[in-house]
Amino acid sequence: MASSPSFSMSALHSTCTPRVPNCPKEFVDNHSSLYSKQPLHSKLMPLSTDLKHSRFFTNEKPLQWEQTARLPQRNRVLSCALDIENTPFSVGNKFQLDDVIEAQQFDRETLSAIFEVAREMEKVEKKSPGSQILKGYLMATLFYEPSTRTRLSFESAMKRLGGEVLTTENAREFSSAAKGETLEDTIRTVEGYSDIIVMRHFESGAARRAAVTAEIPIINAGDGPGQHPTQALLDVYTIEREIGRLDRIKVGLVGDLANGRTVRSLAYLLAKYQDVKIYFVSPEVVKMKDDIKDYLTSKGVEWEESADLMEVASKCDVVYQTRIQRERFGERADLYEEARGKYIVDRDVLGVMQKHAVVMHPLPRLDEITVDVDEDQRAAYFRQAKNGLYIRMALLKLLLVGW
Amino acid sequence: MASSPSFSMSALHSTCTPRVPNCPKEFVDNHSSLYSKQPLHSKLMPLSTDLKHSRFFTNEKPLQWEQTARLPQRNRVLSCALDIENTPFSVGNKFQLDDVIEAQQFDRETLSAIFEVAREMEKVEKKSPGSQILKGYLMATLFYEPSTRTRLSFESAMKRLGGEVLTTENAREFSSAAKGETLEDTIRTVEGYSDIIVMRHFESGAARRAAVTAEIPIINAGDGPGQHPTQALLDVYTIEREIGRLDRIKVGLVGDLANGRTVRSLAYLLAKYQDVKIYFVSPEVVKMKDDIKDYLTSKGVEWEESADLMEVASKCDVVYQTRIQRERFGERADLYEEARGKYIVDRDVLGVMQKHAVVMHPLPRLDEITVDVDEDQRAAYFRQAKNGLYIRMALLKLLLVGW
Amino acid sequence: MASSPSFSMSALHSTCTPRVPNCPKEFVDNHSSLYSKQPLHSKLMPLSTDLKHSRFFTNEKPLQWEQTARLPQRNRVLSCALDIENTPFSVGNKFQLDDVIEAQQFDRETLSAIFEVAREMEKVEKKSPGSQILKGYLMATLFYEPSTRTRLSFESAMKRLGGEVLTTENAREFSSAAKGETLEDTIRTVEGYSDIIVMRHFESGAARRAAVTAEIPIINAGDGPGQHPTQALLDVYTIEREIGRLDRIKVGLVGDLANGRTVRSLAYLLAKYQDVKIYFVSPEVVKMKDDIKDYLTSKGVEWEESADLMEVASKCDVVYQTRIQRERFGERADLYEEARGKYIVDRDVLGVMQKHAVVMHPLPRLDEITVDVDEDQRAAYFRQAKNGLYIRMALLKLLLVGW
Repeated sequence: MASSPSFSMSALHSTCTPRVPNCPKEFVDNHSSLYSKQPLHSKLMPLSTDLKHSRFFTNEKPLQWEQTARLPQRNRVLSCALDIENTPFSVGNKFQLDDVIEAQQFDRETLSAIFEVAREMEKVEKKSPGSQILKGYLMATLFYEPSTRTRLSFESAMKRLGGEVLTTENAREFSSAAKGETLEDTIRTVEGYSDIIVMRHFESGAARRAAVTAEIPIINAGDGPGQHPTQALLDVYTIEREIGRLDRIKVGLVGDLANGRTVRSLAYLLAKYQDVKIYFVSPEVVKMKDDIKDYLTSKGVEWEESADLMEVASKCDVVYQTRIQRERFGERADLYEEARGKYIVDRDVLGVMQKHAVVMHPLPRLDEITVDVDEDQRAAYFRQAKNGLYIRMALLKLLLVGW
Repeated sequence: MASSPSFSMSALHSTCTPRVPNCPKEFVDNHSSLYSKQPLHSKLMPLSTDLKHSRFFTNEKPLQWEQTARLPQRNRVLSCALDIENTPFSVGNKFQLDDVIEAQQFDRETLSAIFEVAREMEKVEKKSPGSQILKGYLMATLFYEPSTRTRLSFESAMKRLGGEVLTTENAREFSSAAKGETLEDTIRTVEGYSDIIVMRHFESGAARRAAVTAEIPIINAGDGPGQHPTQALLDVYTIEREIGRLDRIKVGLVGDLANGRTVRSLAYLLAKYQDVKIYFVSPEVVKMKDDIKDYLTSKGVEWEESADLMEVASKCDVVYQTRIQRERFGERADLYEEARGKYIVDRDVLGVMQKHAVVMHPLPRLDEITVDVDEDQRAAYFRQAKNGLYIRMALLKLLLVGW
Repeated sequence: MASSPSFSMSALHSTCTPRVPNCPKEFVDNHSSLYSKQPLHSKLMPLSTDLKHSRFFTNEKPLQWEQTARLPQRNRVLSCALDIENTPFSVGNKFQLDDVIEAQQFDRETLSAIFEVAREMEKVEKKSPGSQILKGYLMATLFYEPSTRTRLSFESAMKRLGGEVLTTENAREFSSAAKGETLEDTIRTVEGYSDIIVMRHFESGAARRAAVTAEIPIINAGDGPGQHPTQALLDVYTIEREIGRLDRIKVGLVGDLANGRTVRSLAYLLAKYQDVKIYFVSPEVVKMKDDIKDYLTSKGVEWEESADLMEVASKCDVVYQTRIQRERFGERADLYEEARGKYIVDRDVLGVMQKHAVVMHPLPRLDEITVDVDEDQRAAYFRQAKNGLYIRMALLKLLLVGW
C-alpha cells in the first residue's frame, strides 16, 4: 500500500521504540508488533544456531531514524528505518526474520540473503538430508478466502522440509469468525496449536494485525488489495535466476497495472537495484497509478509509458504480463473486452524478444499469453510458479530456525 | 443430556451385559458398544505396554448395577454403573479407554489420571522424544458440521505426537451422506482407513451410534445439542491448573446457562468433587434448567442463583463466562440485546475478584468479556484453549497406546 | 468409455510413436502422454531399484501394432497395443507404470502383478518397516468434485506408506479454475509442488488431458461418467481375495447397469479371464447397454440377462449389487421407486446363495442391501472398501518407486 521503501527489515528488530522521540507516533503504533517479539536482552546474546526461533539478532548499530520530514506526508507512517542498510551483510551476522508482512520490509541485502537460501532449497527438494530441518514444526494455513495455488505452495514448502501442516481452506465461512470472533482472538487461539501461521485475508492490513497479536511468526499470503509479499519475492527471485542479475535490467510491465498488487510490489522492489528501467504497457483504463511513478522517480528509476508492446518486448529483459480482471470493469463489458484483447503475448511478440529475455506471469493465465508460447524456453511462468516453492521454503526455514 | 452421573467410565469395559438382569434393557441397547469392544478373555490378560490398543483392562471388580429405580425416569437409561468407583486407582493398573462419548463416562479417578497424562503432554510439546509416540497412527476427523477451532486442536494434538491426520471439514455436504448413506456405513468405511475417528455431528447421539459400529476408538467432538466431552475435560483441567485444586472451590457460571452445553457438562463434572459451590448468574430468559439443579442437589453440591455479578465475582475462584447466542432468541432481538449486555466481565469485575481467581470462557468470545481484560494475568481463557491441546493429546495417547 | 480391451498397459511405455506409421493418428494424439514420459535412452538402461521413479523399463519386444481395421470404428482410437501380452511376466522384469487413467490399460499379467503388490500391502499396514517406503514423497489430491470416500482412501494409502499429502477437497469452486485457468495450466503448477497427482474431475477425459500435460504420474480418481479405474481394480482384487480365483467364475451384476461406470469397467476386466459367466439383473429402464454385451461376446464371455435375482444368486460366486441413482430418472419418481425396490439383496437372497459366494457393492449403499445382511460373513462390501486401500497403496508404490 504505497508505503515508504526506506522502511528496511532491520526496523523489525528494534527494541528502542520508546527511546526514539522523533519517530512518528503512527509508525510506532502500526509497527509495534514488528519489534515487540524481540526479547529486551537480545543485544547481549550471541547468535547461535542452537537457539531456534529465538527472535534476536546481534551487531545492531546505534539507531538513527531517517528524517521523515523529507518524505511526502502519506509515506511518513512507514518511513522509520535503522541505519543498518549500510552495514556489511554477512553470513553468521544476520537478522532474525520475525514476520513476513509486506514487500517493503525487505532491503536489498536481506533479499539477497533470502535468495541465497532459496537457491539451497532448490537442492533440498529431493530427499536430501536438509529435507527434515523443520521436522516437529507445525504450520497453520489460515485462509479467510480461498487460494488453492498459494495454499498448496506453502504447504508443499513446509512438507518438503519435514514440517507438518494444519489447514483451513475456508476460514471465513467455517470458523468462529462467522460467530463474530475478532481476528485477534482467532490468532491467539491458533497460535496455541501451531508454530507459524500463514494467513490469507480479505482485508488490507489483516496480516499486520495478526503479527501484532501473535507470539509466533506470521506470513502474509495476501491480504485483500494490500500485500502479497511472497509473490513479490518470487518474482524478483525469478528475474535473478533467469536473467542472472537485478541491476541493469529492463522490465516491461504489461496488462492491468492499476489493480494488480503484483506489479506494484514488483516496481517497489526493483527500485532497490541500480540502472533499472521500467516500461508500462497497459490499456488506458488500467494504467499504472501516479504513486508508483512518483516513487520510482524519487528513487532515480527510469520509467516510460508505451502503447507499443512489440517495441517494448524487443528491448526488455523481462516481459511481465498480467491478467485483466473482469470484475474491475463492472457493467462495462465492452471496456473489458477492449482492454483484454489489446496486449497479448504471442509468438509474434516472442519473435522480437531477445534470446536471453523471458516472459513472466503471476498466474492464473487466461488468454493474455497464447498457449503456443509455452513451449518456448523463454516462457518462464511455470518456472516462476515453482520458484514460489523455493522462496517459501526459504522463508519458513528463516522464520522457524533462523539463518 | 441430563443423564446420570453414576455412569462411570468403568462401564465402558463391562463384558457382562447379558449377565446383569436388573440393568434396564434400554441401557444395554444404548451402551452395548461401550463394552462390546472388549475381548471376552480380557480379564485373564495382564496389562502390558506391548499390547497397543488392545482394549482390555484388569482388576475389574464384581459388577453391581445401581438401583436405578431411585432415579427419576428420565435418567434411568444411563444409570447403570460398575462399583468400581471405590477401587483404588493406580498407575499400571488402569482401565483401557475405549471411546470418549460423553462427560459423564469419567469418574473422579479417571479424570485425575487423564489430567496427569495431560501434564506430561505439556512437556512433550517441543520436539521431545515423546513427540513420536503416535508415529504410524492415523486419525480421521469426520466433521459433519464445521468447527475449525476444535478440528485444529485435535489435528494439532495428533501431529504433536507424531501421528497423521485425514481431514474432512464438511462431511455433511460432501460425503456419501448426501446420497443417503447411513452414519453406520460411513463409519465402517472410514474405520478401514484410519486408527481413530474424531467426529463432529449435528445430531445428538451420533457419537454413540458411531461407537456402537466402530471397531476403532471414537472421540465425540460435539454432537449437536448433546455432548462435547473434551471441552468439559479441558475446563476442569484448566481449573485444576489455575486454582491448584478441584475440591473446595467456588465457581460462578455466567451468561447463557440454558443452552450452553459447556456449562451443563461442567456442572456435572464439578459434582464429583468435595465442597464445591456453584453460582448461577444469567439473564432471566436463559437460566440454568432444573435438571442440573436437581442433580447438584442430589449430589450434595451447594448452588445459588444470583443477579449480582460483582458480588459473585468477589467470592469465586472461577468466573466462567459464556456467550449469549443470538440464534436462541429467534425474532426477539430486543430480548437478545437485553440479555447480552446484562453481565459483562470487564475491568470493574476484575477489580473485585480475588488475586488467585481466574476468568474462563469456552470461546469464541464476543463482547461479554471486554478486550482490556485480556492483559490481566487472571484472564485464563487463552490458556484454557491451549489446555484443550494437552487434553486431546492425552486422550489420543490413551485411546491409541494406553496408559 | 467403450474402448478397446487390447490397449494393454505396455502401450504406456512405447517410445516409438513416430516410428509406427500404421497407428491411427488419433491414437497417437490421445495417448502421446502415456509414453512421452519415458526417456529415450531407457532401453539401454538396466532396471535397478535404486532408480526411483525413473520411468523406464527393459525387455521391450519389437513393436507390432494390432490390425486396428478389424475393430469397429468407435474402438479404433484405443486399439494400439504392443505385442508384449505374450511376454512372460516376471519379477525384476516388469514395466514401469506411468499413469493410471483407465481400466482398459491393464492386461491380465499387469493386474496379477498389481494384486501381488496389494497383498504385500495388507501386511504393511501396521507399522512394519515397509510403512516408510514413500517417505519424502508428496501426493496432491486435486478433486474438482467432492468424493470424501475416495479421497480419504487415497490419502490413507499415501500416509500408510509414509508419504505426505496436499489436499484440495473442492478444487472446482476454490481454485484458479473459477477464474478461467485451463486444467493444463493448473496441472503444470501443481506438479511443481508434488510428486504425484490424484485427480477427480467432472469431465470425461480430464485425467487423460492431465496425463498428457504432467511430467509426474497422474491417477484418475474418477472423471465424470468416464473412468474410475482404481474402483475397477479393487473390485477384481476383491473377487480374487474372496473367491480365490478369477477364471471359472459366475458373477451377477445387479441394479443400475446402464449408468454405473463400476459395473461397466468390471465387465471389461472380467473379460480378460477364462470361463467367466456374467448375469445381468436390472430393472428394464437401466439395463446393460449393447456395447458391453457386444464386447463380451467378441471376447467369448458368456452372458445372460435375467429377471430372477433368486435364481441368479443361487448360481453365482459373486452377487455385485449397485445403487439405483435417483438423479437418472428426472421427474419420473414413479419409475425410480419401481426400479429401486425391484432387486433387493436381503436375507432371503443370502439364503439361496452358496456358502463360498459373496455379496459386493461399490458403496454408498442405500436400501438395496438390507442392513441385516451385514452380519453374514458373505457380506464382502466393507472388506471390498478396505481393499481399495491396499490397491491404492500398491499403485502409489508402483508409480513412485517402481516394482
